[in-house]
Amino acid sequence: MSSQQEYILVTGGAGYIGSHTVVELVNSGQNVVIVDSLVNSSYDAVARVEFLTQTAIPFFDIDIRDSEKLSEVFKQYKIKGVVHFASLKAVGESTQIPLSYYDNNVNGTISLLNVMKENKVKSIVFSSSATVYGDVTRFGDNSMIPIPENCPSDPTNPYGRSKFMIESILKDIHSSDESNWKVAILRYFNPIGAHPSGLIGEDPLGTPNNLLPYLAQVAIGRREKLSIFGNDYASHDGTPIRDYIHVVDLAKGHIAALGYLAKNTGGLYREWNLGTGKGSTVFDVYHAFSKAVGKELPYEVVARRAGDVLDLTANPARANKELEWKAELSIEQACADLWKWTVQNPTGFKVEGYEWKKFEKVGLENRLHSFTNGPLTIALANRGALIQDLSFNGEHLVNAFDNGEDYKLPTNPYFGTNIGRVANRIANAEFQLNGKTYHLPKNENQNSLHGGSLGFDKVNWLGPIVRKKEGVFTVEFLIVEKDGTNGYPGDLKTIIKYTIDSSSVQLEYEAELINDKVDATIVNLTNHSYFNLSGEPTTDDTDVTLFYDQYMKVDDVSLLPTGDIVKFEGVTVGQPIHLDKDAFFDYCYIVDKDATQIDTRGNELKPVLQATHPRTTTKFVFSTTEPSFQFYTGDGVNTKGFTKRSGFCVEPARFVNAIHFDKWASQVILKKGEKWGGITKYSFSKK
Amino acid sequence: MSSQQEYILVTGGAGYIGSHTVVELVNSGQNVVIVDSLVNSSYDAVARVEFLTQTAIPFFDIDIRDSEKLSEVFKQYKIKGVVHFASLKAVGESTQIPLSYYDNNVNGTISLLNVMKENKVKSIVFSSSATVYGDVTRFGDNSMIPIPENCPSDPTNPYGRSKFMIESILKDIHSSDESNWKVAILRYFNPIGAHPSGLIGEDPLGTPNNLLPYLAQVAIGRREKLSIFGNDYASHDGTPIRDYIHVVDLAKGHIAALGYLAKNTGGLYREWNLGTGKGSTVFDVYHAFSKAVGKELPYEVVARRAGDVLDLTANPARANKELEWKAELSIEQACADLWKWTVQNPTGFKVEGYEWKKFEKVGLENRLHSFTNGPLTIALANRGALIQDLSFNGEHLVNAFDNGEDYKLPTNPYFGTNIGRVANRIANAEFQLNGKTYHLPKNENQNSLHGGSLGFDKVNWLGPIVRKKEGVFTVEFLIVEKDGTNGYPGDLKTIIKYTIDSSSVQLEYEAELINDKVDATIVNLTNHSYFNLSGEPTTDDTDVTLFYDQYMKVDDVSLLPTGDIVKFEGVTVGQPIHLDKDAFFDYCYIVDKDATQIDTRGNELKPVLQATHPRTTTKFVFSTTEPSFQFYTGDGVNTKGFTKRSGFCVEPARFVNAIHFDKWASQVILKKGEKWGGITKYSFSKK
Repeated sequence: MSSQQEYILVTGGAGYIGSHTVVELVNSGQNVVIVDSLVNSSYDAVARVEFLTQTAIPFFDIDIRDSEKLSEVFKQYKIKGVVHFASLKAVGESTQIPLSYYDNNVNGTISLLNVMKENKVKSIVFSSSATVYGDVTRFGDNSMIPIPENCPSDPTNPYGRSKFMIESILKDIHSSDESNWKVAILRYFNPIGAHPSGLIGEDPLGTPNNLLPYLAQVAIGRREKLSIFGNDYASHDGTPIRDYIHVVDLAKGHIAALGYLAKNTGGLYREWNLGTGKGSTVFDVYHAFSKAVGKELPYEVVARRAGDVLDLTANPARANKELEWKAELSIEQACADLWKWTVQNPTGFKVEGYEWKKFEKVGLENRLHSFTNGPLTIALANRGALIQDLSFNGEHLVNAFDNGEDYKLPTNPYFGTNIGRVANRIANAEFQLNGKTYHLPKNENQNSLHGGSLGFDKVNWLGPIVRKKEGVFTVEFLIVEKDGTNGYPGDLKTIIKYTIDSSSVQLEYEAELINDKVDATIVNLTNHSYFNLSGEPTTDDTDVTLFYDQYMKVDDVSLLPTGDIVKFEGVTVGQPIHLDKDAFFDYCYIVDKDATQIDTRGNELKPVLQATHPRTTTKFVFSTTEPSFQFYTGDGVNTKGFTKRSGFCVEPARFVNAIHFDKWASQVILKKGEKWGGITKYSFSKK
Repeated sequence: MSSQQEYILVTGGAGYIGSHTVVELVNSGQNVVIVDSLVNSSYDAVARVEFLTQTAIPFFDIDIRDSEKLSEVFKQYKIKGVVHFASLKAVGESTQIPLSYYDNNVNGTISLLNVMKENKVKSIVFSSSATVYGDVTRFGDNSMIPIPENCPSDPTNPYGRSKFMIESILKDIHSSDESNWKVAILRYFNPIGAHPSGLIGEDPLGTPNNLLPYLAQVAIGRREKLSIFGNDYASHDGTPIRDYIHVVDLAKGHIAALGYLAKNTGGLYREWNLGTGKGSTVFDVYHAFSKAVGKELPYEVVARRAGDVLDLTANPARANKELEWKAELSIEQACADLWKWTVQNPTGFKVEGYEWKKFEKVGLENRLHSFTNGPLTIALANRGALIQDLSFNGEHLVNAFDNGEDYKLPTNPYFGTNIGRVANRIANAEFQLNGKTYHLPKNENQNSLHGGSLGFDKVNWLGPIVRKKEGVFTVEFLIVEKDGTNGYPGDLKTIIKYTIDSSSVQLEYEAELINDKVDATIVNLTNHSYFNLSGEPTTDDTDVTLFYDQYMKVDDVSLLPTGDIVKFEGVTVGQPIHLDKDAFFDYCYIVDKDATQIDTRGNELKPVLQATHPRTTTKFVFSTTEPSFQFYTGDGVNTKGFTKRSGFCVEPARFVNAIHFDKWASQVILKKGEKWGGITKYSFSKK
């Protein structure tokens, strides 16, 4: 977010074409800032684009008609150009509420242009539409099919007119300042498909207006059958011909247009068709999608629809030549990608039982995501991918703050958060790897604790990707910690995947080095939730049973391991410990003293601890694939609303300070090409 | 301003066509509320329309893009329809700053329509332009000359495109709600001329874009000569042909369109040309105007102007038939009216040495008007048409508050204001006239004082009409006090005309009954300025010389005249009285004890009092045509910033309580058809 860096502003970047274009922009190396009012789109699309591109993208929930707020974005980021999608876009709706269309589209663009002009940003790629051509069959002689850019405009509905008005305005602005304004008008034909990742795609609100989204809803069972409006047109199968273009091809057209503007030294105003040049009938598309789905989908032929015409195929020659861009993906590919998106997201970005809300006063980077699965509810925040709530049968079982800001309190004892790049202490805040010494922040006396001063707990994780399959949620957050952050070597990509059913929450960590900057780094990940089953301010009277009684001996002064693993006096395996003010624990218990693995996910998920409390009906079992776990009774807690013994922690992980012991070091040294992995599970049942 | 009454909202009502249309609307019996941002127009036009129509017109200094403020107007007034002029309108400028044109015109209209829709106002007359037709000679065969409404639109500049876009938007809005929206599109041809009153007309900022305003500036000496762009067109004299229409005819077209909308029971969208149907060449117009001026004006023929075409004449048949409207005034009449406007207002609404500013926090009804004429400066406010400042050689000579709000203080002792309908006391707050007894508000014990509780001093006078001729300003304010106000009979129209030269200010009152509601009323007008020549908080040490020593004896208790006129002991004619704390005056001195006239303006203007002060160089002489004057040393003053003897008053008028004395009553009884008149003059000189 350096003010030196230049950004492309994308308006409407949360929408269907906008989100796909943002992916291509980021992948082509551009910095992007998104402005979207979210009236017709979902921030989930942005979250998924961030996950997909592994890149945080500044986002502003702003209506472009609010020129004051929009101007602040231009002040905050150095914008070099704008890709302008923000628009209402339903032809039918536009005839019902034309004023909203002119207000959002035309007035919105005027506001945007005012702000651009004010901030001396004079480069814009405008999302126009083949709709501006109107009914090109009016020329009678087919002279305008396929449609060239010089075909006269005569839009037949308010949506099309709003696009045409904007084109006119842009043309006049260019004429008024010819050497400075660079304006690319991209006239889209029929965008279809979805991102091949299955993460983003078209998510129409209400009844889909377009063929393929409708057909996809038929295929997934949300609609009964497709209506085909007339099969008596003069095409090979009687249905009308359109130019369908894969949304990823379309998105790439914007990169090409930006490139064209950038290399042009003077001003320019130019229109380009973005289409394939190949017409397909409704039946062609129907068959392609049925093939992708693997079965013929129900349809019926009904009367022609007013305003429909035989053929609207693009002549894309100008874009092919000048922009050196060409649609490359087939209708079959688009159908396959759409079907993948549909299957993975049968209800679009919305998932039943999942809701999110803002968790900080400003911005959407840190949201609170709630999942309800029968008696179990969990709330996760982007910051630290943390667990803010974990409830079973209505009993809240973890310590938490009720707003994102409080998590930034210096006294926050790592409530619910995930810890990384290296959990627990590293002696003297330094380590050696491949002959090189790395220095870490000394954030606890001489040592480095829990990943350093800007550890995984203090940043907003990207995502989540939320899916629900057979009643089970999966929720994935991602973070890329850049080489050198907190002193650690290498770009480390980490994903935490929560799996949530009606009685348990599983946490799966996966981390790997990316971008080839180093050959190895060190990693040790855990979750730092404070459990409290009592329904009271303290955990007193909780019965905790440990299933392991060996522990890692630590130096009384430095609190660092001596290297010895010995029996812990006062714990009997399987025998409950009654927590009270005299029961102090902050020790690392050993599940497997010979552990060497970097990825423990192949291990058996073993119960290591269980807890109950007389005031509640909940029994809590803690399992992990990890070779050790810290058990901490929270005696050092002193923060807003919480004091000592408000909750107890169970932190499964690799051995404390392992990098400084040859026999243990392999547990935490992650080499390029390998994966760090571990699984932990919280299970709840009635006593 | 009753909320029951229905209003026509006129946007841009301070502009050229807007102001003329407001006159016709008011004259046709409509209530009007004006919204105008004043960016390209002058509130003076509104003030003059109010004066001309003798009607207060609610005005809001609002940019229609500010939908929040605009909405408040709709909440405050019950709007039944909108006549929408507000627009930027210079073709050439629109090619330079197109974004401003789209923002003001298109975005402005969208905002207006949003507010209308929100407030269920769905009737609009839109000020469009023949510019939307573009170059109709493109049809080659003259099939579109004269231009009919069904001529396809193809505007050739951003101004024209903004008008065309608005037409499209209105058309779509009507289509979306056909049975409710009533939309009249009026396409103007070339409006010319001015109101025959000479009070309002076109006042272009900068270089006029149009033929006649330019020619008028040549005629009045502000421009050297007219440029005629080409004399080689295929017309009878080689210059291009346009359809010039008198602005009053054009204005009346709006009344006709509103009438058409009103009588139409369903919704409608319809375009009408407002033109004469008769083309005139540039030379035709040139000759007509030269004739009006009385001499041939300088011109030169230069090259053709890009974009000009031979003939743009309207076919007004549709408006003639459907609206039952027809342009009736000739070009000759337009030229005569324009010349009258030009001669009376050679610099438009601006007058050198005259400035105004807001005098209250909210609204423009009460402004403060300053006039500087050499050493003399006077400031007049609309409220009471009062004198807020009177300075000579930099010495401020009257008591005043510095803001309009303070004049509303209950303790305000009538500072500087004009008093009416009847100045001074009326015994028992009642009188008889033509056998009828009228009861007035008892606002001073049992009596009525200074016109009652809502006298002329407490309302905002209309105007002013400001003119300057041979170095002398005339400033006219007007008030119409409606029958029954404060208990007085009859609609009374009163004008006060200030005449300001470099050493004197003259106040001329003229009042008459209008609207035939009664045969007679009573009137007695004066000005209540408090003079103070000392430059100090009190008038102590002022030398005042009275030129009359008879006075009206009053009852010590009631302060009402006994009917006796006797010598005032302690005053010697021509002998200065030295004002000090023992010099108390509040007496009515008699200039002409036998006075009977209702209009004293034919009398000699006699000096009745003079004053000097040792601390200043100013000599003040007070003259009047009135038969008496109250001399008051201000001993009762106790208000914000002023205490007793802060200023002295000289109030020339008819005899106090005259209506109750048969011998004096004719001084104040104003009969229908007669005029009440009186003149007073304040003269200043160096001692």
